[in-house]
Amino acid sequence: MPVVPAAVNDMSDRDRDRDHVVVIGAGFGGLATAKRLAHADVDVTIVDRRNYHTFHPLLYQVATAGLNSADIAYAVRGIFHKQANVSFRQASVTGVDWQRRTLELDHPDQPSLDFDHLVVAAGAAANYFGIPGAADHAFPLYALTDAVTLRNHILGRFEAADADPSLIDDGALTFVVVGGGPTGVEVAGALSELFHKVLSKDFRMLDVAKARVVLIEMADVVLPPFSPASQRHARERLRTMGVDVRTGEAVTSVAPTRVTLRSGEELPAHTLVWAAGVQASPLASALDVPVTKGGRIAVGRDLCIEGHRHAYAIGDVAAIPDGKGGVLPMLAPVASQSGRHAADEIIRSMHGQRSRRFHYLDKGTMATIGRRAAVAELPLHIRLSGTPAWVSWLGLHLLTLIGFRNRASVFVNWAWNYLTWDRGPRIILGPDRGPGAMP
Amino acid sequence: MPVVPAAVNDMSDRDRDRDHVVVIGAGFGGLATAKRLAHADVDVTIVDRRNYHTFHPLLYQVATAGLNSADIAYAVRGIFHKQANVSFRQASVTGVDWQRRTLELDHPDQPSLDFDHLVVAAGAAANYFGIPGAADHAFPLYALTDAVTLRNHILGRFEAADADPSLIDDGALTFVVVGGGPTGVEVAGALSELFHKVLSKDFRMLDVAKARVVLIEMADVVLPPFSPASQRHARERLRTMGVDVRTGEAVTSVAPTRVTLRSGEELPAHTLVWAAGVQASPLASALDVPVTKGGRIAVGRDLCIEGHRHAYAIGDVAAIPDGKGGVLPMLAPVASQSGRHAADEIIRSMHGQRSRRFHYLDKGTMATIGRRAAVAELPLHIRLSGTPAWVSWLGLHLLTLIGFRNRASVFVNWAWNYLTWDRGPRIILGPDRGPGAMP
Repeated sequence: MPVVPAAVNDMSDRDRDRDHVVVIGAGFGGLATAKRLAHADVDVTIVDRRNYHTFHPLLYQVATAGLNSADIAYAVRGIFHKQANVSFRQASVTGVDWQRRTLELDHPDQPSLDFDHLVVAAGAAANYFGIPGAADHAFPLYALTDAVTLRNHILGRFEAADADPSLIDDGALTFVVVGGGPTGVEVAGALSELFHKVLSKDFRMLDVAKARVVLIEMADVVLPPFSPASQRHARERLRTMGVDVRTGEAVTSVAPTRVTLRSGEELPAHTLVWAAGVQASPLASALDVPVTKGGRIAVGRDLCIEGHRHAYAIGDVAAIPDGKGGVLPMLAPVASQSGRHAADEIIRSMHGQRSRRFHYLDKGTMATIGRRAAVAELPLHIRLSGTPAWVSWLGLHLLTLIGFRNRASVFVNWAWNYLTWDRGPRIILGPDRGPGAMP
Repeated sequence: MPVVPAAVNDMSDRDRDRDHVVVIGAGFGGLATAKRLAHADVDVTIVDRRNYHTFHPLLYQVATAGLNSADIAYAVRGIFHKQANVSFRQASVTGVDWQRRTLELDHPDQPSLDFDHLVVAAGAAANYFGIPGAADHAFPLYALTDAVTLRNHILGRFEAADADPSLIDDGALTFVVVGGGPTGVEVAGALSELFHKVLSKDFRMLDVAKARVVLIEMADVVLPPFSPASQRHARERLRTMGVDVRTGEAVTSVAPTRVTLRSGEELPAHTLVWAAGVQASPLASALDVPVTKGGRIAVGRDLCIEGHRHAYAIGDVAAIPDGKGGVLPMLAPVASQSGRHAADEIIRSMHGQRSRRFHYLDKGTMATIGRRAAVAELPLHIRLSGTPAWVSWLGLHLLTLIGFRNRASVFVNWAWNYLTWDRGPRIILGPDRGPGAMP
């Protein structure tokens, strides 16, 4: 039941007698909350500054020209065609009036939105840890536009080196990937395949063998959370693919054409891909709620935001207690499962029922390195590597993509890429922002 | 045989004993020239400021969210994987030194490129005829980025109207298409289908029936070059699709939210799609060659540029005599056929043979209006309309698309769109530049 009058500028036609749930963010967490509320006696509004859901696990394939950008994006409104109680608002959230339960939007036509229950699922952003130059010159890989920007830049560097091969020594074809977690390993492997199997055919005059991928990881191993056997497998596969893996190393500063390492070495490199860390969305600090290390919103074990009985935080933006003194990692399954729990909590609170603790069910983790090369660590100590892990990875990602059309398109592209060693969408669409960029 | 020493900054490894053909532009004309030279004893360099070929006839489907942008683009280097005598250079041409036979490039690493034979296939650009405000506020549809920009804007206007329905009266959902030729008719029909069959499901709270498409054509009929029967068919189909067709009308000025017509009427409209006319690429005037009306390069009947025995102009950028006192229209088949003729002329000139006249073979013309609605006028007075014309249109465009992957993707998308009335890629990727745009 609404406890405050509706904001005068709230134009929606929703039923004023029903509770209004506002979900900030259309990522895995936000979608899971909204879907779980399909049969609840509430109206749901999802607010996101983009009109589409992004399937983050495949961003690196868009960046390396393996998939079309639209293949891994799905219009939020389309996801809820058949769920009549969900509305969408494309806007950025700038703040909240907790007293009036009103969300403030950076939207020219609708500056606020009132709510009875709030679910904050705003996700994460790159964390550059204050490394000089990183925020200006590194290429993050967290949004669809990031992936397209990186693709444009990679192809642009090859065009530049083809026009003036002396740029190779300047680092035009040296690609530094920072972060040896699953994203970094996936990017490094995909770049190596793109260069040596695809672009080597495009650039016949260029000595593409000089293109280098350097993977920097601060820990002594790649894929730190995986088992030693998986770590060794990944490292060996990367090595055979020609990736220069440097563990126990870190980046200390970034310039447009130079990367400085902790060891003092200065790498000539026009490209640094940032896969080293994420932090909670900056929205967390705009909401005037308690935050923990990394800017994540402090929540109780029921996912309620501390001090706000009717508000929840889920997924990457939330510091969700793991029950063992720590917090859960920033992973898609945590977001989805916590999203469903928040929806259940809202329903319980409307029925006057007691809140329950959220329990995360770890279904395992996977990382792909390249063609028929992946590692998977599943429950019951099942560990896969090589082709079985790779096939599992393909299947899981196809199944979890939203929309039949997207699945069909990704499947066709993957089959095509596999059979032909081709990459269709290697087009530079829009300006390249890199050094010596095209006009 | 090169007649001048190679420019010092020309880094390519091509054989200096072979003639060098430079082709400006990777459109239908430029590609046809390069392909025709596959077995000639020459090296070919294609220069284009984009690294991909754009299949212009389907741009309107990208703009109306029917196809992915990458579906109608193909990397130029990929097209010539198997043709060893073709190189590519991504650069804009800024001028030419006819004496030294050197092309000047706006490229940071390679400012010039020498040639023995030059083929100018630079295409066309929108012609706003000096209408006040048109260059700043109209949406052209001539490049892939134009199509993506228009798609973002259309979807952004629906989001804005959904947030504040009072914007509908301000013209947020009024889309003016200027030009009743094939492109204008295709855009108008596709917009109408997008609004009433697709977006009406996305925007349940919005009265999408208020979305209007207004087609403005200066002549008294739509599709002026077609037969009266085809014109009537197109007009009737547009009418049943809800398009407000206004013939004998013109636009006199354009503002961000207002379009003023010759009749004095001021239409509230946030969107004006420019399909009213094209002119030769501005490059034509930078080359210091004789140009005709519309800025097209004057060529002889052998396609040689007047005063330059070793240089040719083809396709949209050239004023090609039709042999009856006029010039050939700006159409893809003219570009392809003239491209092949220019290649043959180069071979003939190398063998000391006499030049020949170019003869254009008109294979007919088509325009599609919407689902199972098209008109086609083929040789031997064969005229099709409705479903047979539409199926012919689909088949012809699938066959002329470059690349199996693109054909497969377009076919899958078309089948999907036809069966489901869905449009997959309706995502706003990148900023909307329209009035009241999202931050």
